[in-house]
Amino acid sequence: MTKHTKNTMSLRARLLTGTVAAAALGAGTFGAISANAAEPAQAPAAVTADTTHPRDLRQSTHLTIDAATRAARAALDAAESENQRVTVAVVDRDGNTVVTLRGDGAGPQSYESAVRKAFTAVSWNAPTSELVKRLESAPNLKDIPGTLFLAGGAPVAAKGAPIAGIGVAGAPSGALDEQFARAGVAALTR
Amino acid sequence: MTKHTKNTMSLRARLLTGTVAAAALGAGTFGAISANAAEPAQAPAAVTADTTHPRDLRQSTHLTIDAATRAARAALDAAESENQRVTVAVVDRDGNTVVTLRGDGAGPQSYESAVRKAFTAVSWNAPTSELVKRLESAPNLKDIPGTLFLAGGAPVAAKGAPIAGIGVAGAPSGALDEQFARAGVAALTR
Amino acid sequence: MTKHTKNTMSLRARLLTGTVAAAALGAGTFGAISANAAEPAQAPAAVTADTTHPRDLRQSTHLTIDAATRAARAALDAAESENQRVTVAVVDRDGNTVVTLRGDGAGPQSYESAVRKAFTAVSWNAPTSELVKRLESAPNLKDIPGTLFLAGGAPVAAKGAPIAGIGVAGAPSGALDEQFARAGVAALTR
Amino acid sequence: MTKHTKNTMSLRARLLTGTVAAAALGAGTFGAISANAAEPAQAPAAVTADTTHPRDLRQSTHLTIDAATRAARAALDAAESENQRVTVAVVDRDGNTVVTLRGDGAGPQSYESAVRKAFTAVSWNAPTSELVKRLESAPNLKDIPGTLFLAGGAPVAAKGAPIAGIGVAGAPSGALDEQFARAGVAALTR
Amino acid sequence: MTKHTKNTMSLRARLLTGTVAAAALGAGTFGAISANAAEPAQAPAAVTADTTHPRDLRQSTHLTIDAATRAARAALDAAESENQRVTVAVVDRDGNTVVTLRGDGAGPQSYESAVRKAFTAVSWNAPTSELVKRLESAPNLKDIPGTLFLAGGAPVAAKGAPIAGIGVAGAPSGALDEQFARAGVAALTR
Amino acid sequence: MTKHTKNTMSLRARLLTGTVAAAALGAGTFGAISANAAEPAQAPAAVTADTTHPRDLRQSTHLTIDAATRAARAALDAAESENQRVTVAVVDRDGNTVVTLRGDGAGPQSYESAVRKAFTAVSWNAPTSELVKRLESAPNLKDIPGTLFLAGGAPVAAKGAPIAGIGVAGAPSGALDEQFARAGVAALTR
Amino acid sequence: MTKHTKNTMSLRARLLTGTVAAAALGAGTFGAISANAAEPAQAPAAVTADTTHPRDLRQSTHLTIDAATRAARAALDAAESENQRVTVAVVDRDGNTVVTLRGDGAGPQSYESAVRKAFTAVSWNAPTSELVKRLESAPNLKDIPGTLFLAGGAPVAAKGAPIAGIGVAGAPSGALDEQFARAGVAALTR
Amino acid sequence: MTKHTKNTMSLRARLLTGTVAAAALGAGTFGAISANAAEPAQAPAAVTADTTHPRDLRQSTHLTIDAATRAARAALDAAESENQRVTVAVVDRDGNTVVTLRGDGAGPQSYESAVRKAFTAVSWNAPTSELVKRLESAPNLKDIPGTLFLAGGAPVAAKGAPIAGIGVAGAPSGALDEQFARAGVAALTR
Repeated sequence: MTKHTKNTMSLRARLLTGTVAAAALGAGTFGAISANAAEPAQAPAAVTADTTHPRDLRQSTHLTIDAATRAARAALDAAESENQRVTVAVVDRDGNTVVTLRGDGAGPQSYESAVRKAFTAVSWNAPTSELVKRLESAPNLKDIPGTLFLAGGAPVAAKGAPIAGIGVAGAPSGALDEQFARAGVAALTR
Repeated sequence: MTKHTKNTMSLRARLLTGTVAAAALGAGTFGAISANAAEPAQAPAAVTADTTHPRDLRQSTHLTIDAATRAARAALDAAESENQRVTVAVVDRDGNTVVTLRGDGAGPQSYESAVRKAFTAVSWNAPTSELVKRLESAPNLKDIPGTLFLAGGAPVAAKGAPIAGIGVAGAPSGALDEQFARAGVAALTR
Repeated sequence: MTKHTKNTMSLRARLLTGTVAAAALGAGTFGAISANAAEPAQAPAAVTADTTHPRDLRQSTHLTIDAATRAARAALDAAESENQRVTVAVVDRDGNTVVTLRGDGAGPQSYESAVRKAFTAVSWNAPTSELVKRLESAPNLKDIPGTLFLAGGAPVAAKGAPIAGIGVAGAPSGALDEQFARAGVAALTR
Repeated sequence: MTKHTKNTMSLRARLLTGTVAAAALGAGTFGAISANAAEPAQAPAAVTADTTHPRDLRQSTHLTIDAATRAARAALDAAESENQRVTVAVVDRDGNTVVTLRGDGAGPQSYESAVRKAFTAVSWNAPTSELVKRLESAPNLKDIPGTLFLAGGAPVAAKGAPIAGIGVAGAPSGALDEQFARAGVAALTR
Repeated sequence: MTKHTKNTMSLRARLLTGTVAAAALGAGTFGAISANAAEPAQAPAAVTADTTHPRDLRQSTHLTIDAATRAARAALDAAESENQRVTVAVVDRDGNTVVTLRGDGAGPQSYESAVRKAFTAVSWNAPTSELVKRLESAPNLKDIPGTLFLAGGAPVAAKGAPIAGIGVAGAPSGALDEQFARAGVAALTR
Repeated sequence: MTKHTKNTMSLRARLLTGTVAAAALGAGTFGAISANAAEPAQAPAAVTADTTHPRDLRQSTHLTIDAATRAARAALDAAESENQRVTVAVVDRDGNTVVTLRGDGAGPQSYESAVRKAFTAVSWNAPTSELVKRLESAPNLKDIPGTLFLAGGAPVAAKGAPIAGIGVAGAPSGALDEQFARAGVAALTR
Repeated sequence: MTKHTKNTMSLRARLLTGTVAAAALGAGTFGAISANAAEPAQAPAAVTADTTHPRDLRQSTHLTIDAATRAARAALDAAESENQRVTVAVVDRDGNTVVTLRGDGAGPQSYESAVRKAFTAVSWNAPTSELVKRLESAPNLKDIPGTLFLAGGAPVAAKGAPIAGIGVAGAPSGALDEQFARAGVAALTR
Repeated sequence: MTKHTKNTMSLRARLLTGTVAAAALGAGTFGAISANAAEPAQAPAAVTADTTHPRDLRQSTHLTIDAATRAARAALDAAESENQRVTVAVVDRDGNTVVTLRGDGAGPQSYESAVRKAFTAVSWNAPTSELVKRLESAPNLKDIPGTLFLAGGAPVAAKGAPIAGIGVAGAPSGALDEQFARAGVAALTR
């Protein structure tokens, strides 16, 4: 599943799957079991293992955390190079926040703003500066929970479908915020 | 992306991508743009289209809505066949609720319980009846927001990794709830 | 248990009531007692049984979970047949969410939108496309918690009274969303 | 539907149903349409009217507001007669709060406590003093949102099924609170 | 109990204070101590008793629960006499909800609406129908948490100062809602 | 009502009461009407004025803001004199926060802790160090929303009834926190 | 770090730092460790002590609690001198509430309003009366969580950068509220 | 204030301060004013500029965003090198989230867990594995909002005072999580 994953499952990984796993947890192990700790492909007959039929599965595409971090950092760098203090957020297509970077000196309103701009951009696959215009015909779109219709959000796409949104907040204008967000998107194509 | 998606992108689909899309929205169109309406693979030079480098992408696996509905329905049927009133929920690996079915006569506490049991099962890839035991060594696991450590949740896996959780609540015992949740999981392997 | 408790309780009623009940729950039984687990019609004089005077009761009408699921599925099918990715929700007259189906690829904003459209439609017994117009004279209706004044919600009625709402969100326009919601309503009359 | 409902529907009531209704709303009418304003049995062909098939419907039983108020008042009177300051709440089987009465001088913690005790009692159809004992075998039941496992809640049943819960909070002991809650239940059987 | 505690406490004061109190609570007594359980006017020198200097105190005026219930009931009766299904709420000057009555058949949106209308009326000591007009000059007043600027709320005053608000929601127009709310206010002057 | 209140009501104060007030609000006046701006005893016939019958009223006792501030400051001074960084909160008998002081360098957890300790102390009219012990017999008291059962809260009483709570958080021990809270209480008796 | 801090660290202060501290906590010490209890400059080799490189640090400027209290009190005094009942709040540049003073008789809406006005003023370093005008070009700024665009908030700056906001709410007009807020700011320059 | 800040303030920066700033905002400028855009030291007589007396100010120390990102990345790298999927969060001394990195494949419960572990570590300036032990004497510490008492959080200190917390969640044990968090702390000392 990742580059670190090996094909031959260790005994421990096998134990960590399903019913057997729980029984094997020692007294000193009190954290969470990593669900993906390894590919237990050869795991014998665990309750939950390997059984879902392929026709019942679909894939969704995400930025890797490496890419998302690089994009967020690029957006922040773009802001800092213009002496602006902003917060940057990356949200995936399911609406989950993947990366946040609260820039030095960014205002307290910027954190939540950045997250919501990113959410809004990925929801409708358009820059939030464009989505603001859409309110002219459907003003109540902005009442959808989690959204923010202010310039500063930009979508990230793969094969034409949205996979993430980058949101920036804290600059003196939404146009500036969005310029920085686009710099983040651009970092994914270099 | 789905069985309905065609390879040749319509004009409309192209228009619905990126900056161009927003400009093309007529006055009578006030809903949300479907981000995945089609595969705009040939879309020329849209701002957000096709540009993310493959090395920056990863895939995650989900149940189709058809499969998730079938599993939830199977869990509910199992409960009804034993004259129990329950709510069933399916949550994906990202924690998003995919399906909920509030069974006839299920108690008011069952809806949120079912969702949280499903969330808990998919988070640690184990039945919640097993996870309850884990609290002996780490009692504060149960303070993690969104979780509920009560029997009645079962994980769904593909290739050994968790992809969903099924939660059932409302029967007289958690053991019964979990029996029904497992019936839901079983429906995915037939 | 209290001064109202009489000695002539049926065995089952005794088990389900108060101290005895709790004691009877085995070590492996730690879930909730199903309040409706069976029809205890013959149970004589349990503390909580049968005693409310009929004049103090009223009935409310609900969709069965089978009907609600069928309606939601019909709405989702209508959307999929037009290649749209949406979430569908059914909410009852008391505002409780009964069914949710997050369609494959639906945007992250669609889930909460669908629930709120359904809530809004059943609250005022009108399609949300009509309710949007009502804001012209009472713009602050949209500030009522839980509502969303966007096309895509349709009421379900029985004998002229609203009993449920169906909400759809995620298509490129609210008009499309509402067309799918109406397909869900139509499934209840076939 | 209520004693006030007449069999012959007025023109206004007819207009207030479905699509027609919305169009008929004058500029001076900016509140909510009463969904149950009358029985529009003869309403001609409204979009949402009368069409749901009876096999798709089920009934749920509720206390009338008159009965719920009487019960709450009886509980409060019982407390006041013992010089105790409490809040009383009545919650229906769907978890909706129906009546609250914040007694003179009741502590600030009593309001939410009363609502949650009522919710808990109706969820499991048992007095909360009994449900507290159930935590011995399933301690995490108390983590279900909306519940409170403290004595002071009593269920109301009709034909053996729970239809409401009465919760009282604020007295020096939960035993007292529950005594008052039972006085509320008793008021429904006189 | 602390270094400030004196030895000459009355028996009752001792019981109600600190360690002794807790010990005195029997095994069956696990609720809250009623802070106002009696008038401990003669209690000498308890830690928390009688010591605040009168110059440091001010009084606020509230409706008794009897009056608040009567007003709420009058508002509900007024609605029912016109065949309208509404929820009624009474909120005190500190913003605390004192009484709620969810009328038979009232829409799910009405409960929170009624509470907020009452809150709004008592906050600005004016009927909400008047406060709506105030938004013309200060449109963002409606963004204050807890408020709702829709007709249907009426203030209750004593000696010219607001002491409570009555909110009604669920009728086809806010004007009707407010007529019923005023009927509630009127019940306090008879 | 306060020392600043005059007996002869100004024209403006009269205008600011009830229906008349709202009509009189000019375009430049877009804030909130001060509900208690003066004693409008002579106000002629306003809708909401002066009409509630005295038998329907009760009084509650509060600390003045001057007293509450003095008490909070005294608690903070006590902490600072021992080189501790804490937050102090004062909550009234209705649960409303009256004063908060976030001391220099107090930890981020201290603010909400202080408020909740104050709320808990005033709810049960006992120091929270004592209330902690009460959990032995009623462990779920601590699940009541808004409470925190940690030493550091002290009640303020007048004539034996609780009128406020003072909460302190941030010192290395709850015993220290509570010592500072008591210093706040003591400031009200000097 | 404060005027009370001594240069020579006591044994206790040393123990209270890092890993060593936790081990040293006796059974009677169950509160929070004051993170800043003293300057443990000579603390030997604690896990978390002294190691962050200076290049990785930045400073932010705050009002002392003494100054913030003085400013809040000055704002309240200004309101009281004009016979107005208001709540005053001070929020720092990170958005944390530092001081709140709920004035005698202030309306229930005023507390949250004051906090949000202060938050808004410090976020954009401008009086909220000015920020209201900014909505003409960016109306959705007001959808950012935590903000309130009503006159009554004033920023506090040091060397031109915002360090705090003072918010006032409850007077008959926002202009009055803001006049009082400015009086609070002025108290910091005397 | 940062390395980008220049000593001579541009005209634009001057305009962006206080009352003047707001007036100067053109129609095309609809974002937020950057409060710290430059050091307007020479700004003449702006309302809010430069006036706070130094005695009223204190400084707090923060990680730069560069350092916080480096620490978070180091923690994530440590996890990935052991094939673990985790989320990492950095929270500052005021409780604000500064950086979040949701690692590839981390469970849905890990995001909020990581933030809360970081919050807890910085609140008490100790690793959360140590703080867990503290619950033995003060079990209700874990009820403080925002905290999570599970191993995996580590404090960051400067001159012995806590300035940030790093939280990691998602590995099979809290011990592993904390090992990674410490790797993040270590990255700040190299």
